[in-house]
Amino acid sequence: DCAAIAAGDGSLSLFTTDQVVADIHYHKALHPPVSPQQIAHKLLARNLSDIAAMGGQPTYCLASIVQKKGETWLHAFFDGLLQTADRYGVYLIGGDIVSAANDESSSLTLIGTVAEKDVCRRKGAEPGDILFATGKFGQSLQTGHHLDFEPRCKQGQWLAQQGFPNAMIDVSDGLLLDAYRLCCASDISLQLETPAIPFRNTQTTLTQALTDGEDYELLLSVPPSKEQTLEKSWPFDKVPITKIGTFSKRKDEVQITDADGRKLAPADELGYEQNL
Amino acid sequence: DCAAIAAGDGSLSLFTTDQVVADIHYHKALHPPVSPQQIAHKLLARNLSDIAAMGGQPTYCLASIVQKKGETWLHAFFDGLLQTADRYGVYLIGGDIVSAANDESSSLTLIGTVAEKDVCRRKGAEPGDILFATGKFGQSLQTGHHLDFEPRCKQGQWLAQQGFPNAMIDVSDGLLLDAYRLCCASDISLQLETPAIPFRNTQTTLTQALTDGEDYELLLSVPPSKEQTLEKSWPFDKVPITKIGTFSKRKDEVQITDADGRKLAPADELGYEQNL
Repeated sequence: DCAAIAAGDGSLSLFTTDQVVADIHYHKALHPPVSPQQIAHKLLARNLSDIAAMGGQPTYCLASIVQKKGETWLHAFFDGLLQTADRYGVYLIGGDIVSAANDESSSLTLIGTVAEKDVCRRKGAEPGDILFATGKFGQSLQTGHHLDFEPRCKQGQWLAQQGFPNAMIDVSDGLLLDAYRLCCASDISLQLETPAIPFRNTQTTLTQALTDGEDYELLLSVPPSKEQTLEKSWPFDKVPITKIGTFSKRKDEVQITDADGRKLAPADELGYEQNL
Repeated sequence: DCAAIAAGDGSLSLFTTDQVVADIHYHKALHPPVSPQQIAHKLLARNLSDIAAMGGQPTYCLASIVQKKGETWLHAFFDGLLQTADRYGVYLIGGDIVSAANDESSSLTLIGTVAEKDVCRRKGAEPGDILFATGKFGQSLQTGHHLDFEPRCKQGQWLAQQGFPNAMIDVSDGLLLDAYRLCCASDISLQLETPAIPFRNTQTTLTQALTDGEDYELLLSVPPSKEQTLEKSWPFDKVPITKIGTFSKRKDEVQITDADGRKLAPADELGYEQNL
């Protein structure tokens, strides 16, 4: 989820960048409108989720903005950014602001660090591993979760430092698509226990939980020997961790099937593309 | 010009970010249109100039783009970016692409490194120091220099490693404004030998040389004891280095005056704001 570069002292420097663009990542025309603080939070939080997926500690960020909202808006944006940055231990060390009539977008580069021995990647899942997921899935847009989510940095770091994941990824583009990416990177297939997937609310459908995206939860493969220890020692009361699948050896192609063995992936439309 | 963070091994990590936005940093409606390669070059080169100003070696970059030009355009953009990156020893390690109808902007974060003992900052100029400038000034927009300039990374590194500058800055927003920033950071005044400023071409006026901006040259303060050595040992045949002023102790306020003692700065309109 990030570029990782050896820092020479047993740690890796992590680098990631993501944008938030009007009418792509939020609707401009909403009433009440999405606030500058929410936009700033989402911008940083999307990047934090990438660091979380590697078990990293976020450290520094640089933010660039194109907008024509004026100073009050900008102050509110940076207030929001600094509030979230503060909560996650991140320092804002640079940025660029451009005033332009038709554009409304922002971009952030986030830097982080992780011990080389702890780092989690998309590859590494083994046949027999259990797929765990943090949190709940689906209806991120309808519920506003896509604006106010809290990325799983603490959870990612704890998991990495305890050595639970063989592989890990965050869910930005949909549970199914990001699980498929993990499977491809690990060259492995997956049977999803679809009835076990936690839904965000009672309106959520299975398709939404699988493909809505912007859940910003973690998916991780855990060796079966560590399954019970993980469930017993999980220290985050407010964030569930749930077993939702089992990895198996790839046959012809990397596949994701449901509990009844029906093929879910690869498919033409796996993820977020058809949504907001 | 960049954030500098101690890496713990005697070097500093440098971080900078800058954007290129349509109709701010280039005209969309030009015929022939500005090419995606030119946009990409400018995006990276603007950031390279910030690293150059600190005497740093650029290392890694992450690029984010918002556009609706399609794949051919994007390929050309990244071709351009990678060509420039290659020439300056930079690796592209991440990015994000968003397709959006009304927006056309790109943002890049550049990382670099410099030995702590070599690093150049805006502060540090001393009374009696000489102001040197690389290259030529003015008419950057009219001549296309603002699209095809080559940032002074080699020159900045050489100067820093040879220990010439007490302070250094790059000229992005105009010679006068960026010289004034250096003066303010160093709490010092400056007498500019305006007749000595090299003009980009014969059409250039003094006002253009002072305020057009986007020259992406280096301004540096050099102790008088090193003036002659610098002029003799300067190894870059194609890039002039010129003595254009002398620093003096600040009296009431930080000031820039011309050769006749008339006040040039501070003034209301110092730099690029009134231009493109």
